[in-house]
Amino acid sequence: MSLVVLGTVALDNIKTSKGHHRALLGGSAAHFCMSARLFTKVHLVGIIGEDFPSKHLQFLRKKKIDVTSLITREGKSFQWHGEYKDNDLNTAITLTTEIGVLMNYRPQIAMHQRDYGNIFLANIDPDIQLQLLRLMKNPKLIGLDSMNLWIANKKKALRTLMKKINLFVLNDGESRQLTGETNLIKAAKALRKMGPQMIVIKKGEHGVLFYCDKFMFTFPAYPVEHVIDPTGAGDTFAGGLMGYLTKVKMINETSLRKAVIYATTLASFNVEGFGMAKTGPLTLPQVHARMKKLVKFIAP
Amino acid sequence: MSLVVLGTVALDNIKTSKGHHRALLGGSAAHFCMSARLFTKVHLVGIIGEDFPSKHLQFLRKKKIDVTSLITREGKSFQWHGEYKDNDLNTAITLTTEIGVLMNYRPQIAMHQRDYGNIFLANIDPDIQLQLLRLMKNPKLIGLDSMNLWIANKKKALRTLMKKINLFVLNDGESRQLTGETNLIKAAKALRKMGPQMIVIKKGEHGVLFYCDKFMFTFPAYPVEHVIDPTGAGDTFAGGLMGYLTKVKMINETSLRKAVIYATTLASFNVEGFGMAKTGPLTLPQVHARMKKLVKFIAP
Repeated sequence: MSLVVLGTVALDNIKTSKGHHRALLGGSAAHFCMSARLFTKVHLVGIIGEDFPSKHLQFLRKKKIDVTSLITREGKSFQWHGEYKDNDLNTAITLTTEIGVLMNYRPQIAMHQRDYGNIFLANIDPDIQLQLLRLMKNPKLIGLDSMNLWIANKKKALRTLMKKINLFVLNDGESRQLTGETNLIKAAKALRKMGPQMIVIKKGEHGVLFYCDKFMFTFPAYPVEHVIDPTGAGDTFAGGLMGYLTKVKMINETSLRKAVIYATTLASFNVEGFGMAKTGPLTLPQVHARMKKLVKFIAP
Repeated sequence: MSLVVLGTVALDNIKTSKGHHRALLGGSAAHFCMSARLFTKVHLVGIIGEDFPSKHLQFLRKKKIDVTSLITREGKSFQWHGEYKDNDLNTAITLTTEIGVLMNYRPQIAMHQRDYGNIFLANIDPDIQLQLLRLMKNPKLIGLDSMNLWIANKKKALRTLMKKINLFVLNDGESRQLTGETNLIKAAKALRKMGPQMIVIKKGEHGVLFYCDKFMFTFPAYPVEHVIDPTGAGDTFAGGLMGYLTKVKMINETSLRKAVIYATTLASFNVEGFGMAKTGPLTLPQVHARMKKLVKFIAP
């Protein structure tokens, strides 16, 4: 089966104590692709500017990402300048954001891609996420990610969206912001009432909580000793989750647990390098080797 | 085998949005006993004042805690007044602390108890912890807990102590404070170099990381929806850990994983009620029932 992802394709400028890297390939959809590609064909829906480095586009193609619906417009690519402080690698400090071609973007998707059943709406303006959803003909499994900015400024669109999707992936801070509940189980239950059948609350280095009506589970993160750059960890996680579910074409407790273990493992690679330094070259056997270690770490 | 615990026996005054309770039985050693008693005979070493309610003492006796070395002195019992805010139930806000009889306390332990092999030095002044250790004749497994106050003010005594013990139980904030490392694996390794062979870093609602030279593991906490009062959760955890290890008389990866699962389960009961409202009446079958659920939650 095929998987469609809508989201940002960005140039990331990232500063940490380990270095300062400029114009890295980034964005929610790009990071998502880098892990989802290990399981299934991924069709990227997004926009870039004319300044977008051709090496990044070539890289996506080399990784077998279908960029048919990644359109290029006159103007500048979306850019993010962020910083992480050593004492809190969980929190990105946004220095500047340049919207560029994302301004007035309306998603375009090739006709033949509109029949694909599995869709992930990676982090981007919820109005844009809704627009893509209206173009899709046969959605079976729709996943959604968002961010604090949209929860604060586009709550109405986000709540409309939540009624249309199946799986909501968000972080603990966002779940608290959206529901007003500090306890994560209460937050998960409140989110469930807003629409999505499956709730995945990511807790960064503390792991993940999965909630649905019939069961709930929780895993710690893979313990990473040398965190270099956490940018895109959540998107990488979502890519592993949706990629695996698309591959196995089955949604049940077993496949969901396995999907979350894959997602957790993939996110741990992402944080070990700047941009896609680690996830770009990654192969499935490498993922399986670490997954085996993770399962050993966390088995009760 | 028998287990000796040294620590505070306190009167706790606790304020949360769920209520304000006064003169509850509390203290590090008392909470420790309440879970360790489920596995083994526990011998409590501590001090109380003449004002200590006889119902609390009767309660400890009824729970089969050996209070032979819990001495009573003229003066007031140690009192703690604390508060938890709904938006951060992980952090206790100390309103006041009344040292009372703890001032100038030197631990006294009955001669026949000095031969016991398993000892837990629950949170109390490290100088007092060292004094007890000097009285013990045949220590086999020595566990230690501490707190931010001693790390800040009695670091030298604490470091001396760390060279003499086997198992160090502390929370993530304390591990960072003591080592200067924000990454918990790095912190665990740094702590290992300071002496103790086994490091258990508690992360509150986020679970626990166990580290030793040969292996490492990590479990999430049992997801508790209705947190009432987290006071003593760490001591309850330590009691489960040491209690189980004392019962099975064996230290290996299997027994340590099981001990940490017991400890995690017991801590989850503690937070569901004020003081010992939940851990006091607890029986082992109830613990096993929840443990089964926990294992199901976290099994990869």
